[in-house]
Amino acid sequence: MQEYSNISLDNLQITIIGLGLIGGSIAKSLQRNNHDNHLIGVVAEQSDMTQALELGLVGECHSQIEPAVATADLIIIATPVSAMGEILATVNRYKKSTAIITDTGSTKISVLTAARQNLTASQLSCFVPGHPIAGSEHNGLTAGQAELFQNKRVLLTPHENTANEALRLVEQLWRALGGIPICMAAKRHDEILAATSHLPHILAYGLVAMLAARGDTEEVFANAAGGLADFTRIASSDAALWRSIVAANRQPVLQALDGCMAQLQEMRQLLAAEQDEDLQDLFTRAQMARNQYMARQE
Amino acid sequence: MQEYSNISLDNLQITIIGLGLIGGSIAKSLQRNNHDNHLIGVVAEQSDMTQALELGLVGECHSQIEPAVATADLIIIATPVSAMGEILATVNRYKKSTAIITDTGSTKISVLTAARQNLTASQLSCFVPGHPIAGSEHNGLTAGQAELFQNKRVLLTPHENTANEALRLVEQLWRALGGIPICMAAKRHDEILAATSHLPHILAYGLVAMLAARGDTEEVFANAAGGLADFTRIASSDAALWRSIVAANRQPVLQALDGCMAQLQEMRQLLAAEQDEDLQDLFTRAQMARNQYMARQE
Repeated sequence: MQEYSNISLDNLQITIIGLGLIGGSIAKSLQRNNHDNHLIGVVAEQSDMTQALELGLVGECHSQIEPAVATADLIIIATPVSAMGEILATVNRYKKSTAIITDTGSTKISVLTAARQNLTASQLSCFVPGHPIAGSEHNGLTAGQAELFQNKRVLLTPHENTANEALRLVEQLWRALGGIPICMAAKRHDEILAATSHLPHILAYGLVAMLAARGDTEEVFANAAGGLADFTRIASSDAALWRSIVAANRQPVLQALDGCMAQLQEMRQLLAAEQDEDLQDLFTRAQMARNQYMARQE
Repeated sequence: MQEYSNISLDNLQITIIGLGLIGGSIAKSLQRNNHDNHLIGVVAEQSDMTQALELGLVGECHSQIEPAVATADLIIIATPVSAMGEILATVNRYKKSTAIITDTGSTKISVLTAARQNLTASQLSCFVPGHPIAGSEHNGLTAGQAELFQNKRVLLTPHENTANEALRLVEQLWRALGGIPICMAAKRHDEILAATSHLPHILAYGLVAMLAARGDTEEVFANAAGGLADFTRIASSDAALWRSIVAANRQPVLQALDGCMAQLQEMRQLLAAEQDEDLQDLFTRAQMARNQYMARQE
């Protein structure tokens, strides 16, 4: 494998597969920071190709993977995790043997499994699974923001076959985009994200689905406080994307959901039994933990 | 009863019992809009009296209700709902017979019950229960914002004894503060708020309590996405206040919580049974409902 750690990111031909919120933001951020890469994009639809070029996200755009990865030094797969296996198989077939591959998928065990099934052993060493902890409920070609990764953690989950040089290059990429690369095990990543991201999405979708199933939805929403808008923001996230995320991280999500439902059941029992002091203690523990969490963020 | 509907709000002596987020915001908003009221405040602690005067929230401040309501034309009770009965009994004893009373409590059946128990029949006609749908997770004397009620709904729940003149004056007050007064039945108010406000608080407290009970809370919060900060914002709300709100609206909250837990249970079963298409349909219904809700707000 080529020694990438000493070369400038600027000399690399970077191909981004998927130009939605994350892929588009990577493209915009590389350009904003004056990285002089030849950027090639891959999008699913012919119409998206035209728009991606008009928006100036990339200098060259394809609807097929083959012509887009042949010259690439670094291939970034920024598609929903459900598409990862097929894409990796195609990338494996057409990439240069030295090209590094990374992804931005929201689950990592599923991606690692897809990589083991679809990359040859030598190519598996070039693969660095990753996940930027940055997002928005918006998506599509126009959703990209050059500043999306600024000071955001990017969780990298190198596996036992990952070459050190490949990891270093992907860390260098994310630092160039303003992010903070952090390594952890894929299993740990999936457990943490199940609790902090996938579970909250299920709660938000669940609450809104319940409100939407009432006969008086219009009146209920019309009289909702501002807190509900914040609380349900993530329920505006793309349903197909989130179906693929929770399906790809099924067991950790079920475990987190069970833990949360047990907690809600406990609160329900306290409220029904008029054990209001105990309920307040529980609210207080949550209030303190949330305040500590926000204090750490500032 | 005096004919209040034709007189200017400016001629009234207004007393605000409780100068937290809501009471303080009423005081600031009246002043910002150049209403020339003699404003008297009531706070629980001696130290708060000094601070309220230093902050210029009111022109006169007391820690007892008696001297604060004797001259009042309009008395606004902006304390937690749990204190309402005792306060109404004292107000009833010392107020002028013509003075109008309103409140800003988050639940309305409980307040109405307290009013029926603690106000004499003639005074009950002067009472207009109310609830501005505006808030923040912040509280205390410094939390008030003059613009808090701008374009916000204020739900008024007049009862069968409420005098028309009293209702008109309270509507006039809220319009002067930038709010939009809307009348509805107290029971309806409590059902709607249980679903849109009290339940989301329980979900947010429950999620954070669950995360805080893990052995790895630090790491979990450190790697949380921005969505979690929004989603849990309301878990920073005052625990004692929210205990009193859910206790005062126990049955509607239990009903809303049961509906939500049934919805979560359905989602859990779909996820466990790998019925991912059905789960996506449910996410889609929620996504569409949430987008319609936000579109109505703009």
